[in-house]
Amino acid sequence: MTNDNRNLAKAKLTSRETDYNQWYLDVAGRGELFEYSPTPGCIYFLPKAASLWEAIKANVNGLIEAKGVRNLYMPALIPMSFFEREKEHVEGFAPELAIVTHGGGKELEEKLAFRPTSETIFCDFFRGQLQSYRDLPLLYNQWANVLRWEKRTRPFLRTAEFHWQEGHTLHETSEEAYEFAVGIMNDVYIKTFRELLAIEGISGVKSESERFAGAEKTFTYEPMMSNGWALQICTSHVLWRGFMEQFDVKYLGRDGKIAYPAYTSWGMSTRSIGGLISSHSDDKGLVIPPRLSEYRAVFLPVYGSGEKSTIDAYVRNVAETVVGKSVETPVKGEYFRALTGADGKVLVDFRDARFGEKITDFELSGYPVAIAVGPKEMEEGLCTVISRVTGEKVQIKTSEAKSVVAKFLEEGQNELRRRSRERLEKNVVACRSTEEIGAAVEAGKFALYEWDKNPAFEVEIKEKYKATTRCIPNKGQFTDGILTVKNPDNVAVIVARAF
Amino acid sequence: MTNDNRNLAKAKLTSRETDYNQWYLDVAGRGELFEYSPTPGCIYFLPKAASLWEAIKANVNGLIEAKGVRNLYMPALIPMSFFEREKEHVEGFAPELAIVTHGGGKELEEKLAFRPTSETIFCDFFRGQLQSYRDLPLLYNQWANVLRWEKRTRPFLRTAEFHWQEGHTLHETSEEAYEFAVGIMNDVYIKTFRELLAIEGISGVKSESERFAGAEKTFTYEPMMSNGWALQICTSHVLWRGFMEQFDVKYLGRDGKIAYPAYTSWGMSTRSIGGLISSHSDDKGLVIPPRLSEYRAVFLPVYGSGEKSTIDAYVRNVAETVVGKSVETPVKGEYFRALTGADGKVLVDFRDARFGEKITDFELSGYPVAIAVGPKEMEEGLCTVISRVTGEKVQIKTSEAKSVVAKFLEEGQNELRRRSRERLEKNVVACRSTEEIGAAVEAGKFALYEWDKNPAFEVEIKEKYKATTRCIPNKGQFTDGILTVKNPDNVAVIVARAF
Repeated sequence: MTNDNRNLAKAKLTSRETDYNQWYLDVAGRGELFEYSPTPGCIYFLPKAASLWEAIKANVNGLIEAKGVRNLYMPALIPMSFFEREKEHVEGFAPELAIVTHGGGKELEEKLAFRPTSETIFCDFFRGQLQSYRDLPLLYNQWANVLRWEKRTRPFLRTAEFHWQEGHTLHETSEEAYEFAVGIMNDVYIKTFRELLAIEGISGVKSESERFAGAEKTFTYEPMMSNGWALQICTSHVLWRGFMEQFDVKYLGRDGKIAYPAYTSWGMSTRSIGGLISSHSDDKGLVIPPRLSEYRAVFLPVYGSGEKSTIDAYVRNVAETVVGKSVETPVKGEYFRALTGADGKVLVDFRDARFGEKITDFELSGYPVAIAVGPKEMEEGLCTVISRVTGEKVQIKTSEAKSVVAKFLEEGQNELRRRSRERLEKNVVACRSTEEIGAAVEAGKFALYEWDKNPAFEVEIKEKYKATTRCIPNKGQFTDGILTVKNPDNVAVIVARAF
Repeated sequence: MTNDNRNLAKAKLTSRETDYNQWYLDVAGRGELFEYSPTPGCIYFLPKAASLWEAIKANVNGLIEAKGVRNLYMPALIPMSFFEREKEHVEGFAPELAIVTHGGGKELEEKLAFRPTSETIFCDFFRGQLQSYRDLPLLYNQWANVLRWEKRTRPFLRTAEFHWQEGHTLHETSEEAYEFAVGIMNDVYIKTFRELLAIEGISGVKSESERFAGAEKTFTYEPMMSNGWALQICTSHVLWRGFMEQFDVKYLGRDGKIAYPAYTSWGMSTRSIGGLISSHSDDKGLVIPPRLSEYRAVFLPVYGSGEKSTIDAYVRNVAETVVGKSVETPVKGEYFRALTGADGKVLVDFRDARFGEKITDFELSGYPVAIAVGPKEMEEGLCTVISRVTGEKVQIKTSEAKSVVAKFLEEGQNELRRRSRERLEKNVVACRSTEEIGAAVEAGKFALYEWDKNPAFEVEIKEKYKATTRCIPNKGQFTDGILTVKNPDNVAVIVARAF
């Protein structure tokens, strides 16, 4: 473990082809998204990662608020006895718990677990909230840190502590709960992944063995990463009534009878940052979808034989044509400055360094657009705008900078989504045997397979090919027309390797 | 412990005069800010509390961002050995730690503590970030949950787990660090408390014994609650160089020599919600400063002999004159609805209940303005607007609703701040002996006392009067002209009882 990614800074980025895992770590580390921390399995989420998560949060928060969901905060530590009440749930989570045994210098009477998820304590809370059908629906969410003790970790994709939102809702009928869980998946998660993160995936339901511990049904969205692996990037569940029974959550129904409500829970996490890294980045480094980027552009003054102070002043002027009259703040140390105006923020790299070095760092940074200005361009009132996504490079009048930046941002966003869609269009293949599945996943593809829902199949593909069933896809997606299910008792299922 | 505050709902609110502590719990509980949780010392932060904290966060976040501070996330669990490195720090925090001893089913080699504050792990992080003076300043903040195992808790004012921001910055010189720590206190905290929370306090520095564990200097802001007690509501510290030495955080200076940077940390927390409750509320219930309120107004349709659906439709129309064309979402259960338009949000109480019940619940809710509409008012195109803060009540044409609401919101905000200021103006008294201090704090006042800085005095007033030194006030405040310090080696100090 090292806390100093800068030791890597001059080394060449590992290529995706050579070693995908190392490429991922290089991209995320040199893209200044994380550093390893001294806490086992935990990372330092650096400011760029925090800004990505804040942007995702703001979007998701607005969408769930529009559904009437309200935020609250539950305790991070949950009494151990709570986990033991719901049998499937405790079996699923017990191996991953971090346990607090001492507090205030004394051994605790009841041990506490750092929440790996909060169904149990929400149930306790719900019991106090619910009396009559008139109290329904109850629609809550929390933005929280959770902890799952993991043996093998990978920054963002699998860390012990991570950040997420977890929604928990109660409804009068099972139908209403199903509709709500599906609505969260479609109107909140999939909308956010497609439109903001530019990540296309396959939506569907999980098989019985892949469901959340305690769920009756799990809805999922599974994009394909750039190595052909799947990533479970968000889930929405309708839960077993067991939770309601074990925690005695019930209400007086319209018919005057006591009833158990229907329960949904749903979450997406900082894992989505891992999805973004893996999905969009290239051999030059990180690529951030423009709509998620903190900075609209990075200015790269090139000094050559020019006067630094004159060029810097000129660059500030050009920056203000892009974001308006702006305030300057330090970003890190002496040379990197944010300029914040009414139309957003840009970053300026004021280092007295060669253009080559600045452009390499820009490419590593993942920000969507660079604007380079040299002494000669300054004299002619010009600048050069470069798209991180498409590589397009144009020399323009500075008066056009604002509109060209806007154009590059939009084109970059669309291009990333197009690539993500194309990856799925080209790499879902029909398979008629486990051998074909093995060949498909080995080649970095998603296999679509007619499955009789026998769990023995899942054991077999896991052992033989390290592959799992990802979802039984909904209609109207990339899987349409690829495979016709012959036996009406069977389903088409996506099989893939997964993070 | 109960999870059901509704059992209290029909009982009369305890008056402030009768039992201040119970009044506080009643106001916060029936104002639907918290419920007790099954985790020792922890509460459920209900949606209203979450919305207050989100509004405070947004304001503080904007102000610190303007100073160049960037957010990141550190692990919640910190290796125990980290605490032991800085002697004063571990002595201050060891009694309050919650300790994780097991993870993933095994006993841990090194125990982990749930962060009570994050200086130690920030120091580890800083070591990896800092090489040269060119890397300075380093300006970071995190929004996080922290845990301090407390023997006696009081919702928001003192809970085991709470939410806060903690800023941590490194600077090249001690002067720069002092300037930054003071800037955070004045431009971020005091500005937020005065302008947003309408809480006036006394700013100054802590005595040696009241400083943060590991600080060289602690700046504080101490408002007076409505019982005359002080509340330490935010602090900003310049820390001992010990942290830098113990964690080996150093840099190559401009002069080519290795140097230790100067370190500041600063925080404010959900305790500020406790300050808001205690400062502004009255015997009718919670009072939320208008600028912090999620809802601009609460609509109270009164049905009488009128047709419910007709009155409800009319109320929706009036609501839209206030917030614009709006979308309706459930808030809790069947009857409470939020209407969200371009100009904000309002709440509508659609219950078929008596006006008296609705107005009592409005007063408990703490929202700043009510708009009542009955059948007769509907016929005449009128409504009645009521200010929660001032109690003012006017019947107006519905076309005037928007401007009257805006006026009541502004007046309510100003009035709360005026009352908070007046409380300090009237209740800081000069004392010339410990007996006079005892009488002052017994009467719910702040004592201002000429102090020779001998800590024996602090022990004495604590034992005799349960009072502590709150701060050595800066000039230009409520303390001016009250007491003239005779001996130039002495200071004037505020003494009070405190939460």
